[in-house]
Amino acid sequence: MIDVIVIGGGPAGISAGIYLKRFKYEVLVIMKDFGSLEKTDHIENYYGFPEPVSGRQIVENGLSQAKRLGIPIKNEEVLNIDKNDFFTVKTAQNEYLAKAVLLATGINRPNLRIPGFSDFVGKGISYCAVCDGFLYRKKTIAVMGDGDFMAEELSVLRNFTNNLLVFTNGVPLRAEIQDVKIITDPILRFSGNEVLSNIETKNQKYDVNAVFVAIGTPSAADFALRMGAFIEANLIVVDDTFMTNIPGLFAAGDCIGGLSQIAKAVADGAQASIFVNKYLRTKTS
Amino acid sequence: MIDVIVIGGGPAGISAGIYLKRFKYEVLVIMKDFGSLEKTDHIENYYGFPEPVSGRQIVENGLSQAKRLGIPIKNEEVLNIDKNDFFTVKTAQNEYLAKAVLLATGINRPNLRIPGFSDFVGKGISYCAVCDGFLYRKKTIAVMGDGDFMAEELSVLRNFTNNLLVFTNGVPLRAEIQDVKIITDPILRFSGNEVLSNIETKNQKYDVNAVFVAIGTPSAADFALRMGAFIEANLIVVDDTFMTNIPGLFAAGDCIGGLSQIAKAVADGAQASIFVNKYLRTKTS
Repeated sequence: MIDVIVIGGGPAGISAGIYLKRFKYEVLVIMKDFGSLEKTDHIENYYGFPEPVSGRQIVENGLSQAKRLGIPIKNEEVLNIDKNDFFTVKTAQNEYLAKAVLLATGINRPNLRIPGFSDFVGKGISYCAVCDGFLYRKKTIAVMGDGDFMAEELSVLRNFTNNLLVFTNGVPLRAEIQDVKIITDPILRFSGNEVLSNIETKNQKYDVNAVFVAIGTPSAADFALRMGAFIEANLIVVDDTFMTNIPGLFAAGDCIGGLSQIAKAVADGAQASIFVNKYLRTKTS
Repeated sequence: MIDVIVIGGGPAGISAGIYLKRFKYEVLVIMKDFGSLEKTDHIENYYGFPEPVSGRQIVENGLSQAKRLGIPIKNEEVLNIDKNDFFTVKTAQNEYLAKAVLLATGINRPNLRIPGFSDFVGKGISYCAVCDGFLYRKKTIAVMGDGDFMAEELSVLRNFTNNLLVFTNGVPLRAEIQDVKIITDPILRFSGNEVLSNIETKNQKYDVNAVFVAIGTPSAADFALRMGAFIEANLIVVDDTFMTNIPGLFAAGDCIGGLSQIAKAVADGAQASIFVNKYLRTKTS
């Protein structure tokens, strides 16, 4: 019987794993891939690294750190989680039994089925204003979205430029936005040469230097949903103790929403471990 | 006029500074010393570092990171902060004017005036169960304190040993504690050879391997108090946006309480920067 299975080998999962291992629990990390950090080349805002570092390098550092502390890491895809007295985590290769599970799966960023979209991800199309906004200072920036998430990104982007456009992509605007042109026409195509330079709708072609995608539909965590965990806007709902509505099922990092930054995921993991500890103590005492 | 003065050059302050600089604000960091990390030799639970690293090294990394991004850092002691239309931050050498101030000063850990106390800090006397508890597995551990802070530390330490003692040091017990011997006699002396081995009261001499100090009296931030910022148990009180009751005065990291870990301080800094940005936008629009 494993004490805690952590699903996800990124900053939130490994940070939690390190703390839980320190608390002398038997921890297993199951991970599928490097997640959204795989595609991030140049991180200079995670505290402690004097020089820019790639997302891949940070994840690899974390995995080395975990292994050095004796935490086993399996590269398997989780297919299902069941709970009876304990949790059964089923992967393509194995079944594991655990007292508690921590979901730290990150988010699946929406890959829009609009011609040109996937061609320009990382070449003008970004998912994070805080991360990439400064690259487009005084340039024309479009934000895709219609609600609060879009409004948040817009408020960050106002620091870099006054040339802002909002594309709701055929949906009515839900957020209250001032001083910005709103285009509600559906987007037909993203175009450009090496990098993005245009957004085309039925009626017009817009010159843009960047698009920030802020549609309120990130994460999956389908298995959490299948277990009956509450999900809102594709994010896993947790209480102040990082626990879902299912006792013993915890979540941390991007999959619970909030600031999509390594710093926040790492802190989530550390904080969640404190509450996983409390949960396990209550169960066994 | 500086946009934001950050007081404190540790994880919370520098993390916030990096984000604020990215948002294109003029930021100044004023720091006095390396704070409590100066004395920490061996950190292996901050995500991203495969090998153990000293607290001093992490702080130095952070300062290099900030300098590379163009953030000026002054080694000056802040004597006072005043607010009229703007904030005036007075140091021994200079006076600076700023639109917002972020306090990230860490905590002054209580240095008890009991014979032997200062001799054994770091040699058996610790301030953080999550950090050091695992060093004393199956050993006899004493916790000093009488309230919730002590109870929290105790719940972490139960992972490592059953041999626990609580010393309230002459104060009645306020927390509800079970299965642990409570000693309310005042402590007369800490003793040992190279490392701590005994706690002496009027009536008895106790064999212990470690003492964790969890007295509800950390931080100072005297100037915050002098400005009229709300303080509770020596911690600076902030709202969900990391702002104190004084508009434009923010705080992050250990000085606002919570988990006393680098991960949490770094995330605090990142999160606080988002709200400092919002505050500055409201003020200037």
